[in-house]
Amino acid sequence: MTFINTDELVPGLSIDCVIFGFHEYELKVLLMKMKNSDLWALPGGFVRKDRNVDDEAAVVLELRTGVRDIFLRQFHFFGNVSRNVDGHPEQLVKKEIISPENQAWFEERFVSVGYYALVEHSKVQEPQPDHTSELCAWVSLNDLPELMLDHGLILKKAHHTLRLELNNQPIGLNLLPETFTMPELQALYETVLGKELDRRNFRRKMLSYDILIDTNEKRTGTSHKAPTLYKFDRDKYFTAMQDGFSTAW
Amino acid sequence: MTFINTDELVPGLSIDCVIFGFHEYELKVLLMKMKNSDLWALPGGFVRKDRNVDDEAAVVLELRTGVRDIFLRQFHFFGNVSRNVDGHPEQLVKKEIISPENQAWFEERFVSVGYYALVEHSKVQEPQPDHTSELCAWVSLNDLPELMLDHGLILKKAHHTLRLELNNQPIGLNLLPETFTMPELQALYETVLGKELDRRNFRRKMLSYDILIDTNEKRTGTSHKAPTLYKFDRDKYFTAMQDGFSTAW
Repeated sequence: MTFINTDELVPGLSIDCVIFGFHEYELKVLLMKMKNSDLWALPGGFVRKDRNVDDEAAVVLELRTGVRDIFLRQFHFFGNVSRNVDGHPEQLVKKEIISPENQAWFEERFVSVGYYALVEHSKVQEPQPDHTSELCAWVSLNDLPELMLDHGLILKKAHHTLRLELNNQPIGLNLLPETFTMPELQALYETVLGKELDRRNFRRKMLSYDILIDTNEKRTGTSHKAPTLYKFDRDKYFTAMQDGFSTAW
Repeated sequence: MTFINTDELVPGLSIDCVIFGFHEYELKVLLMKMKNSDLWALPGGFVRKDRNVDDEAAVVLELRTGVRDIFLRQFHFFGNVSRNVDGHPEQLVKKEIISPENQAWFEERFVSVGYYALVEHSKVQEPQPDHTSELCAWVSLNDLPELMLDHGLILKKAHHTLRLELNNQPIGLNLLPETFTMPELQALYETVLGKELDRRNFRRKMLSYDILIDTNEKRTGTSHKAPTLYKFDRDKYFTAMQDGFSTAW
């Protein structure tokens, strides 16, 4: 058994990553089943003293899914005193990763930085559990198990933020094929939003964002009236990621 | 001289508050001039072990401006290692608030939670300096002094976030009079965005948000064609604060 060296870590600070997985118009989230417990947890970790917090979140994402350089965003800082009350992390994980002499480190108040990411989950490696978990898996948002600590709240907040940010920022790159139809793009939005959208309004609003390029090609092999294929204008896409859509104030 | 008791504080964690002040269509920010230094700083502080981090930010806002229960929002977590390199806070403030025996506490790496608020600055009390500063004042965004540490970056990020969030959330309550004209609301947006907006587009977009009530009254005393007075529909305003505008996805 390998214990973590708490001397190398920032005390009282953790990160929690809500990694959403999209595949065939279904939205899932990556969860880990804790050892010696029925509870599940978000992937996360602690912060090395010599590492940026954002970089530590990227490490967690890569360790669990094998992907790097993917959109990973801070969405909230969880700093309430009460978050440690209902089940302190040490109850679940200290036996696995903390040496007996070093348990006090775990018993202090912890604050946590929440990150979210959205990946095409069939394109990433088989999820990998860590030392504290026996299983790491994609779980449907409609069928969530009981989560430890405030991880249920963190997940809910991440999903709310993701939906709100659709109004300021594009999604789709790395989630859809290189070229895609308007109905395919709409289905992605409907999956993330969890509701149906009007076809004409969707098309009008999406085109107003000015991030799509009409490839002048049609999807072949469809029975009638082949739909137009689009791709993202990457320059405009990344500008919109940074500064919002051109329709913004 | 009163030293702070670091035993009561969460180690390595601070908060920084970007308090924007709006008055007569000018946007300012609340800054403090540090004692024994030419540098200025954002209002901020440390976090008591028994206090929620969000509540600690509200305390900072109230101590400096006297206002409470005002919109105060987390906008970013600053967790880079490099943020302490260019001028550690202890260089500026330890002599004022840290006892000589307790300086090591200040020399650890600090991460910081950034909050922003927007107030009508003529309606709040005269800004109050703290133990580390000799002056607390509203400073124009166009005429910023040199700021300590990464406070210039934090301020810039807050302003960027405020402008982006105008697309998801309403502003104006507590900044404008109870009833106001469309040009007055537009002038507020133009001040925050730092650019002119088209009158017709502004009106159309603003009405589409469905947060305004036409009072059926006109501003009297104007020379010709008196403009309509609006007020905010508070229920819809607060719903939009939480869930975005009704025009959102």
